[in-house]
Amino acid sequence: MALELFYWPGVQGRGEFVRLALEEAGVEYIEMGAGNETQGRGVPSITHWLDGAEVERPPFAPPFLRVGDRVIGQSALILMWIGEHYGLAPKDEPSRLWTHQVQLTIADAVVEAHESHHPVSAGLYSEDQRAEAQRRAIDFREARIPKFLRWFETLMARNPAGPQFLIGDALTYADLSLFQLVEGLSFAYPKATARALAECPKVVALHAAVAARPRIKAYLESGRRIAFSEGGIFRHYPELDA
Amino acid sequence: MALELFYWPGVQGRGEFVRLALEEAGVEYIEMGAGNETQGRGVPSITHWLDGAEVERPPFAPPFLRVGDRVIGQSALILMWIGEHYGLAPKDEPSRLWTHQVQLTIADAVVEAHESHHPVSAGLYSEDQRAEAQRRAIDFREARIPKFLRWFETLMARNPAGPQFLIGDALTYADLSLFQLVEGLSFAYPKATARALAECPKVVALHAAVAARPRIKAYLESGRRIAFSEGGIFRHYPELDA
Repeated sequence: MALELFYWPGVQGRGEFVRLALEEAGVEYIEMGAGNETQGRGVPSITHWLDGAEVERPPFAPPFLRVGDRVIGQSALILMWIGEHYGLAPKDEPSRLWTHQVQLTIADAVVEAHESHHPVSAGLYSEDQRAEAQRRAIDFREARIPKFLRWFETLMARNPAGPQFLIGDALTYADLSLFQLVEGLSFAYPKATARALAECPKVVALHAAVAARPRIKAYLESGRRIAFSEGGIFRHYPELDA
Repeated sequence: MALELFYWPGVQGRGEFVRLALEEAGVEYIEMGAGNETQGRGVPSITHWLDGAEVERPPFAPPFLRVGDRVIGQSALILMWIGEHYGLAPKDEPSRLWTHQVQLTIADAVVEAHESHHPVSAGLYSEDQRAEAQRRAIDFREARIPKFLRWFETLMARNPAGPQFLIGDALTYADLSLFQLVEGLSFAYPKATARALAECPKVVALHAAVAARPRIKAYLESGRRIAFSEGGIFRHYPELDA
């Protein structure tokens, strides 16, 4: 049975981190949020799991993944599950947990990327908090982007199996998520991200290697990859970059 | 060998979620950040793991827990590890992952509690971002606190084992963390939190039950429990509450 991915239609958002792992794993999955309501898909299929009175374990928010009779939420947890079931995570327990730890730190960076244009409220339009975002973006682009990217560079430099991947000698879901983080930051803050990446050659190489993997390349060139936009987590407002 | 907990001294912060689990489990642990530098403790013992050139897997930030030759970071992951090793998590895999999912959502609420007084930058003093915080706090106290607390109430109401705990019929680390979240929100936003809790009797009962557990009660009454303050995640600025 195909897995069912639930995420708001039309934006990459946090769903994209899950999609990249499913695409690399070659797993069949259904985009429930994008489907037709007459087929039991679309936004009502998402709100059913969030708000339905009969759902025993409702997720707090999308994305979530339906696997048989279970619904798994929280991007980093979904990825841990996919990684362990589809060969995108190390086998030994310390490395398995370490991969999750790296992913949780990527998730922290994603939160900050979103906060940088929505520092007041996710419920307000970004135009209504631009003054606050102007202040916040300075710290994000000058301090936080470099700090996060340098940390990933350090992990690769110290990986005993070599600097090709974040962890061990094979691709993990964390590598795929770092690819997406670099994609997103490069879209939203092209100047600041290019400056930070100039000091992170291993991260740049990993980003290129992920983009060239056959299944990821096919996905990125397909119509399934949604374009970045000012409706997602990573938003390009030129006045916030420098 | 005692576990070693690394967290900035003098504040509860995210370290407190880990401490509560260690206290309830009755595990011996050393507060490395609070110790004496001549004994290899204190802040330098933290920065050693963050910045030391020879650390293969450096955590991005405290708290982290040293277990033999491993260092585990990210609060939710530390708690998952403690839960599984010291009987504070369910045994079956779906419930084990669901407990982690609940914990990750508590962690999201903790991020938002911090952002509510630091919407511009964690690197600036809160007084230098009070205008932005005034705007953000409205959304946090009116929309987010009720939404998070209602979600926990719903989980307890739908727990097939009864409404005593968030998951199953025994205490988990998520219950301890929800206790701490309620403690922190009640300190920082007493009016808004009391309003939200008035509609969440099961959360209120769980908070009281956790506080009354012998080991937690002893810990809360001991000198080891650091007081809430305006240096932590949960800060009481009366002008932000209503």
